Amino acid sequence: MTTANRVHNFCAGPCTLPVSVLEEVRDEMLNFGGTGMSIIESSHRAPAYDAVHMEALADFRSLAQVPEDFSILFLQGGASLQFAQVPLNLLAPQESAAYLTTGTWGKKAFADAQLVSEAYQAWTGADEGFARMPSTSDFDLHPGTRYLHITSNETIGGIRFPEYPTVDLPLVADMSSDFLSRPIDWDRFDLVYGGAQKNLGPAGLAIVVVRKELLGRSERTLNSYMDYRTHDKADSMANTPPMFAIYVMGKVLKWMQAAGGLEEFERRSAARADLLYGTIEQSEGWYRSPVDAASRSHMNIVFRLPSEDLEKQFVVEAAASGMVNLKGHRDVGGIRASVYNALDQQSVVALTDFMTEFQATNA
Amino acid sequence: MTTANRVHNFCAGPCTLPVSVLEEVRDEMLNFGGTGMSIIESSHRAPAYDAVHMEALADFRSLAQVPEDFSILFLQGGASLQFAQVPLNLLAPQESAAYLTTGTWGKKAFADAQLVSEAYQAWTGADEGFARMPSTSDFDLHPGTRYLHITSNETIGGIRFPEYPTVDLPLVADMSSDFLSRPIDWDRFDLVYGGAQKNLGPAGLAIVVVRKELLGRSERTLNSYMDYRTHDKADSMANTPPMFAIYVMGKVLKWMQAAGGLEEFERRSAARADLLYGTIEQSEGWYRSPVDAASRSHMNIVFRLPSEDLEKQFVVEAAASGMVNLKGHRDVGGIRASVYNALDQQSVVALTDFMTEFQATNA
Repeated sequence: MTTANRVHNFCAGPCTLPVSVLEEVRDEMLNFGGTGMSIIESSHRAPAYDAVHMEALADFRSLAQVPEDFSILFLQGGASLQFAQVPLNLLAPQESAAYLTTGTWGKKAFADAQLVSEAYQAWTGADEGFARMPSTSDFDLHPGTRYLHITSNETIGGIRFPEYPTVDLPLVADMSSDFLSRPIDWDRFDLVYGGAQKNLGPAGLAIVVVRKELLGRSERTLNSYMDYRTHDKADSMANTPPMFAIYVMGKVLKWMQAAGGLEEFERRSAARADLLYGTIEQSEGWYRSPVDAASRSHMNIVFRLPSEDLEKQFVVEAAASGMVNLKGHRDVGGIRASVYNALDQQSVVALTDFMTEFQATNA
Repeated sequence: MTTANRVHNFCAGPCTLPVSVLEEVRDEMLNFGGTGMSIIESSHRAPAYDAVHMEALADFRSLAQVPEDFSILFLQGGASLQFAQVPLNLLAPQESAAYLTTGTWGKKAFADAQLVSEAYQAWTGADEGFARMPSTSDFDLHPGTRYLHITSNETIGGIRFPEYPTVDLPLVADMSSDFLSRPIDWDRFDLVYGGAQKNLGPAGLAIVVVRKELLGRSERTLNSYMDYRTHDKADSMANTPPMFAIYVMGKVLKWMQAAGGLEEFERRSAARADLLYGTIEQSEGWYRSPVDAASRSHMNIVFRLPSEDLEKQFVVEAAASGMVNLKGHRDVGGIRASVYNALDQQSVVALTDFMTEFQATNA
């Protein structure tokens, strides 16, 4: 197997991973670390897996510069389960939290929070087609609010908070779609969570980073799995963890550390985004970004062509040239190029070259 | 990579998988099905993954002969999350369920059920050291009980229900540790669940098979992930599923179907168990099974040696001969040989040969 037959994968998630990581996983599939078995056949209590697990926890802490007063949890159920698990663990029954409806994901987080706790909407972008992130002055915050929930990047709309909002409240953030693509200012956050499957590894793993002093503060009676304390006190091995996803993420974290850490990945993602938005700008309106310039995502670059027919043709011809998963989400249409951490700059160059050529041919 | 350096893996879970499956996974790791990407880089909405997912659902139904009036759900959080999710979905607030405390897993299921609903213990084996499964006449069942929860096989104690109990109530079963090792009489069950990581695939996937007419019957307000209906109506793709685990399980299901289905695996597991228990019997008390003969597990064969020192020596010498993970669970000590679906009979022959030789040398 060579890498020659690999495509440029612009999928919104799960997403492309470093080839060197995939090669290691392949080479270890029948015999991991000399154990005579695959990692997916190993006991989670075995020393070989334990080392992988504890290193992944330590490497996540080191790479993301997570302070010691935060606990890092490896959980299952995706960000979707966190939509309920977060308020159940952070909000006492009489307390309430503010949510920002900035797109599909913010909406889902708010819906679940309302089902299990007191939560209100401090802003919605629905009337504006979710084309921008709000500024702090837009927020309708009530006194006594426990936290403000944000979605750092909306995958479908293609918008992000360029800076995390400055408010007199702790922030809680769903960072699924730009997790570890830029440094995190931990002082501002009570909790950060996200699925691994965009920037970090395979689907089936959610990472929760929570201020330790908050564990147990909701004083709710929670079943064992839903109580963060269960996982915190067992280093996320209270039950069998999603071992393969943790193992692959561990390799990705080491690859990121070796490449230069979060500052380097912030630089790379800005370079990818600049190239794409630059190509859109240079098209003089032939390609068009539907979102507010200040809110443009560095992960999910959404753009439109002069017609839906041209958009269809664009997706088909791009795929024929080995650039796949460029069709926009069915809710919004258009084109979406997702450019996560492991996507090589040469894939973006290939796409922007194609965009220029496609315009020249079809304009 | 040859298979020559593979060990005999007697792990209680996660556990050994068919080498042919691991080889396929290895060969597809950089390019799955000609897509130019790994399955772990694929969108869960992509046609190639969709086919894998829908085939896994169909193959599970076909292999386990699941009737059409049951829904099959692929979930995350393991059996541990089901300990709460089951009563939350099946029990209305005023209803109650009976639980059997047959060992560590039955105890955990009951503890969580009590936290989220009305539940009572219809029997406990604690006073007898969890050395047997109860008979129907042992049960203390209250009128109006909604279901009886059983653990079909207790991994740590090494006991199983040779026949599922006959009661005038629907059964709910945690089958994690003997899932699809024998046919299931669906008429008797309202719901069956289990983690995949014993007999079926990697950790990070739980399978729930639930009678469709019961979906939504608890009338509780549940958050999206915890409500089975969310997953049922989306073919378990309401959120990003644990794709890799489903993909590997799909291959294991096809391997099982090709090998002859559940009747064949019941026959194989009986053969493995007979060989091991037979060796114990033939030792004339040198090896000793601590559990009731009628309740002996066909998956986790637990036995003792004349002293703890000999047990330690046994584990060390077996490992030196390529037979690993034979140490009993820390709660009970002794030796535990877990012999799941994919464990080759020749591994059991190697172990029983070793047992005979070890006795001859050390008796």
